[in-house]
Amino acid sequence: MTAENAIADLRSALPEGSLITDPDSLQAYRRDRAEDPNAGTPLAVVRATSTEDVQAVVRIAAREGIGIVPRGAGSGLSGGSSAVDGTIVISLDRMREIRIDPALQMAVVQPGAFNAEVKSAASEHGLWYPPDPSSQEFCSIGGNVATNAGGLCCVKYGVTTDYVLGLTVVLADGRAVKLGGPRLKDVAGLSLTKLFVGSEGTLGIVTEAVLRLVPAQRAPTTLVAMFPTVEGAIGAVVDIKAAMRPSMLEFMDRVTINAVEDMMRMDLDRESAAMLIVQSDESVEIAAQQIEMIEQTCGMHGASEVYATSDPDESEALIEARRQAIPAVEKRGALLLEDVGVPLPRLGDLIDGMRVIAETRGVEIAVVAHAGDGNTHPLIVLDPTDAEQRANAEIAFGEVMDLAIALSGTITGEHGVGRLKQPWLADYLGDDVLELNLRIKRALDPDGIMNPGAVFGAL
Amino acid sequence: MTAENAIADLRSALPEGSLITDPDSLQAYRRDRAEDPNAGTPLAVVRATSTEDVQAVVRIAAREGIGIVPRGAGSGLSGGSSAVDGTIVISLDRMREIRIDPALQMAVVQPGAFNAEVKSAASEHGLWYPPDPSSQEFCSIGGNVATNAGGLCCVKYGVTTDYVLGLTVVLADGRAVKLGGPRLKDVAGLSLTKLFVGSEGTLGIVTEAVLRLVPAQRAPTTLVAMFPTVEGAIGAVVDIKAAMRPSMLEFMDRVTINAVEDMMRMDLDRESAAMLIVQSDESVEIAAQQIEMIEQTCGMHGASEVYATSDPDESEALIEARRQAIPAVEKRGALLLEDVGVPLPRLGDLIDGMRVIAETRGVEIAVVAHAGDGNTHPLIVLDPTDAEQRANAEIAFGEVMDLAIALSGTITGEHGVGRLKQPWLADYLGDDVLELNLRIKRALDPDGIMNPGAVFGAL
Ligand SMILES: Cc1cc2nc3c(=O)[nH]c(=O)nc-3n(C[C@H](O)[C@H](O)[C@H](O)COP(=O)(O)OP(=O)(O)OC[C@H]3O[C@@H](n4cnc5c(N)ncnc54)[C@H](O)[C@@H]3O)c2cc1C
Ligand SMILES: Cc1cc2nc3c(=O)[nH]c(=O)nc-3n(C[C@H](O)[C@H](O)[C@H](O)COP(=O)(O)OP(=O)(O)OC[C@H]3O[C@@H](n4cnc5c(N)ncnc54)[C@H](O)[C@@H]3O)c2cc1C
Repeated sequence: MTAENAIADLRSALPEGSLITDPDSLQAYRRDRAEDPNAGTPLAVVRATSTEDVQAVVRIAAREGIGIVPRGAGSGLSGGSSAVDGTIVISLDRMREIRIDPALQMAVVQPGAFNAEVKSAASEHGLWYPPDPSSQEFCSIGGNVATNAGGLCCVKYGVTTDYVLGLTVVLADGRAVKLGGPRLKDVAGLSLTKLFVGSEGTLGIVTEAVLRLVPAQRAPTTLVAMFPTVEGAIGAVVDIKAAMRPSMLEFMDRVTINAVEDMMRMDLDRESAAMLIVQSDESVEIAAQQIEMIEQTCGMHGASEVYATSDPDESEALIEARRQAIPAVEKRGALLLEDVGVPLPRLGDLIDGMRVIAETRGVEIAVVAHAGDGNTHPLIVLDPTDAEQRANAEIAFGEVMDLAIALSGTITGEHGVGRLKQPWLADYLGDDVLELNLRIKRALDPDGIMNPGAVFGAL
Repeated sequence: MTAENAIADLRSALPEGSLITDPDSLQAYRRDRAEDPNAGTPLAVVRATSTEDVQAVVRIAAREGIGIVPRGAGSGLSGGSSAVDGTIVISLDRMREIRIDPALQMAVVQPGAFNAEVKSAASEHGLWYPPDPSSQEFCSIGGNVATNAGGLCCVKYGVTTDYVLGLTVVLADGRAVKLGGPRLKDVAGLSLTKLFVGSEGTLGIVTEAVLRLVPAQRAPTTLVAMFPTVEGAIGAVVDIKAAMRPSMLEFMDRVTINAVEDMMRMDLDRESAAMLIVQSDESVEIAAQQIEMIEQTCGMHGASEVYATSDPDESEALIEARRQAIPAVEKRGALLLEDVGVPLPRLGDLIDGMRVIAETRGVEIAVVAHAGDGNTHPLIVLDPTDAEQRANAEIAFGEVMDLAIALSGTITGEHGVGRLKQPWLADYLGDDVLELNLRIKRALDPDGIMNPGAVFGAL
C-alpha cells in the first residue's frame, strides 16, 4: 500500500511531532482563505522544520507517486494551498528564522516567517522590506514568493519578485538547489530565481529566501478623498498617475466603504460612491507639493471631501481601513474573490463592466482596488446557503475574468491562479503560451507531483 | 545540401535586401566588442525587418538543423553574438520602431532600437527609461533584454528585467508568442517574461518589448572624489551605501583614470589611486544633505579632492568620463573584459585579490566598477601580438572568476556568459543548478539551434 508505506516512512524520517495524520487535526490544513468548498483531505500534513525535512518528504512522495501541496500561512485567495485528496500537505509554518545582514542590506528568511515579521526585523536596522500585501500580518514570505505578492506600496516600489535575490528550493526529485544569492546583480545562467517566484508551488518548494532591503521609508503623508461618483475617482487615479509616482493609490467603492464603516466606525461618509487613499513619501517639501496637486486633481474630479495628514498614527488608521476591506466585506456573506487587472486607461471600463455583470446576474460586487496599478479586487458577495445565488455568483466570477481579458487585462494581478482560476488560464494565455508553461512544468516536475491541479489543472 | 537549400529558401522567404551571403559583407557580423579571435564565419546573415521574417528564418533553420546566432548591435562583451561557422546570424538592426504610450507610461519597442533612442523618445513625453549601460548610445534594447543589462543608475533604479513587462519572442520552432504585456502586475502562469530576460538568445529571439517608463528623473547632483588609496575609495563606497541610496556610485582605478585623461584631457589627477563618481537625484534639499554626507564620508576615508556640481553639462561631462572608461583603456592594447561581482562587503577583497593576480601573471589589470552594486569590470590589457602575454592574460581572466566565486560572487554581473565565460559556468552554478538550466534549455530548444555554444557550450 502506497499510502501506508509513505506514512511509515515519513514517521521514521521526520523529527517527532512533525507528522499529522489524525483526521481532526488535518482539518486546519485543508483550505486557504478562499474557503473552497471542494477542498480535499490530505493523507498527511508535515510541519517541516528544515530544508532536510522537506527533502525527505519530497523523496518519499516522489518514490510513491504521491502529490504534494506546499502551504505557507494559508491566507491565499485562489485555492493554491487547498488540500487535494490523497496528497501530503507540506506546511512551512514552523520554519520562521529571519537573519538581517545590515552590511549587505539583505534578509535571509525561512519561508514560514510572516511578511510583517521580516519588516519589523529589518526596521531594527533602519532598513525596509517594501512588499506589503494587506495580509502582511498573517501571510508568509514563502507564500509571498510563491504568488509574487503585491500590496499597497507596489505602485511605487514594485512587487515581491523585485526584492528576491536568491532562493533555496527543493525540487520535485528531492534535491535542494540554491538559486541566486546575496548579489545585487548576477546574470550567470538563466533567471531561475525569477522563474520560481510566482510559480505557486508547482515547480518546487521554497525553503529559504534572500531578500533585498532598502533604507527605511520616509514618513508618508496620507490623503483620503471621497467621491460622489466612481467615474470621478477613476478619473483622478488616471490623472494622478500621469503626473507623479505616489507611494500608494488605493480605491474602495460604496459597498466596501459601508462594510468598513460597519466594522471599524471611522466616520466615513456612507453616501460616497468611492474613496481614494493616496500617499506621498517624498521629502517634506516635495510631498507637500504632491499632496496639493492630488487635492486639486481630486477636486477637479468632483471630490466631496479631501483630507490629508502627516500624523503617523492617523495615516496608519486610514490605511488600516483599506487593509480591513476584505475582512469587512467578508462579514456580509461568503465571497468569491477576484483579482483582475487592466492597463490603467481601461480601469473605468472594467469597473463599468463589472457593474453590468452584477446587475445582470443579480449579485452584489464590492470593489476594492490597488487602483494605481490597474489591479482590482471585485468581491462577489453571496449567501452560501442559497444554491441559485451561488450558481449566479460563479457565472459572474467567470464573466469578470472574460471582461478583463477583453480589456487586455489579466485574470490575476497578485493572488495567483491557484485552483479557482485554473479553468480560465488557457483562455488568458492562449494555446502557445500555455504549452510553453507546460513544457517548463514537465521539465521540472515530470511526474506532476508538485501542487497537483494548481495553476495547470490535470496534466 | 542543407546549406544550399537553406540559402535558396531564405532568399525566397525574405524581402529583397535582407539576406547577406557575400564573404566580405559577412565580416561585419562575425564579432561583438569582445573581438574574439576564435569567432567563426556564418553561412548567411539575415537583417530581419519583422517578426515574420524572424519566424521564416527560424523555421528554415529548424528544418535543416542549422544553428542561429541572434545579434543586436554587437556591443556585447562576452562573445554572445560572435558568429559560429555554418550558422545563420539574425541581425535585428533594422527593426527599430519605438512607440511611446504616455497614458500607459510604457514603450513598445522593436529590438534593434538603441537604448538611448528609447530614452530620448520617452523624454519627449516627460518620461524616463532608466537602464543606462555605458554603451547606451550603441547597444540595442534586444541585446539589453537578452543580457539583462545593467548600468550606472541601477544601484538605485534596478536593471533591465525590472522594466520589461512584456516580450514577443520567436521560439526555436518558429512560433511567435507574446509573453506578459502592458500590465503592471500579472501573475497568471509562470514568469516567462522574466525567464527570457537574460537568456542571451539561447531560448528564443526577442522581436518586441513592452517597457515600463517612469516620470523623468530629477536633475541630479554629481560628486567626484579622488583618493590616494584604493582602500579609501572602497571604504567610502561601503559607508555611502550603508547610509543612503545614491543614484550612481562608480569607481575607476589609477590605470583607468590615466587612460581616460589621455583620451579626454579633463584635468583628472593622474597620481590618484582611485576616483569615485557619485550622484544624488533626490529633491534639492535632500540631495544637498546627501552630497554633504558623501563629502564627509569621502573625507574620512582620506579623499585628496572632492568636487560636487549641480550643473547639468558639468555632471554629464563627468559621467561621460566614466562611460568612456572602457574605450579609453582599449587604446592601451587588446582587452580581456571581466564583469565579476561580489557582495558589497567583499569588494575590497576582490580588488586586493585582483592586484595579486595581476602581479603574479605579469599583466596589467585596469579596474572600473559599478561599485555600489559590487559589480566590477577588471580590464586585462594585453599586446595581441605577444603570445606569451596573451596566455598569461587568459590565465588571469580565469583566476579573476575563480576569485569571485571564492568570495561568494558571480562570474558575470551584467555582460552575460556568452561564449567567453561558458567554461566557468559549471564551476559557478554547480552541477545541480546547471542541470536545471539545461532542462529548461532542452525543453524550449530541443535541437539546440538557438545561439549554439553560448552560455551552455556544446549540448
Ligand atoms: C485580507 C486579505 C488581504 C490580502 N491582500 C493581499 C494583497 O494586498 N496582495 C497580495 O498579493 N495578496 C493578498 N492576499 C492574498 C494572500 O495573503 C497572498 O497570496 C499571500 O502571498 C499568501 O501567502 P501564504 O503564506 O498565506 O500562502 P498560502 O495561502 O499558504 O499559499 C499560497 C500559494 O503559495 C504556495 N506556497 C506557499 N508557501 C510555499 C513555499 N514555501 N514554497 C512553495 N510554494 C509555497 C501554495 O502552494 C499556494 O499555491 C490577501 C489575503 C487576505 C486574506
Ligand atoms: C564601452 C562599452 C560599455 C558597456 N557598458 C555596459 C554597461 O554599463 N552595462 C551593461 O550591462 N553592459 C555594458 N556593455 C555591454 C553591452 O553593451 C551590453 O551587453 C548590451 O546589452 C548588448 O547589446 P547589443 O545590442 O550590442 O547586443 P549584442 O552584442 O548584439 O548581443 C548580446 C547578446 O544578446 C543576444 N541578443 C541580441 N539581440 C537579441 C534579440 N533580439 N533576441 C535574443 N537575443 C538577442 C545575442 O545573441 C548575444 O548573446 C558595454 C559595452 C561596451 C562596448
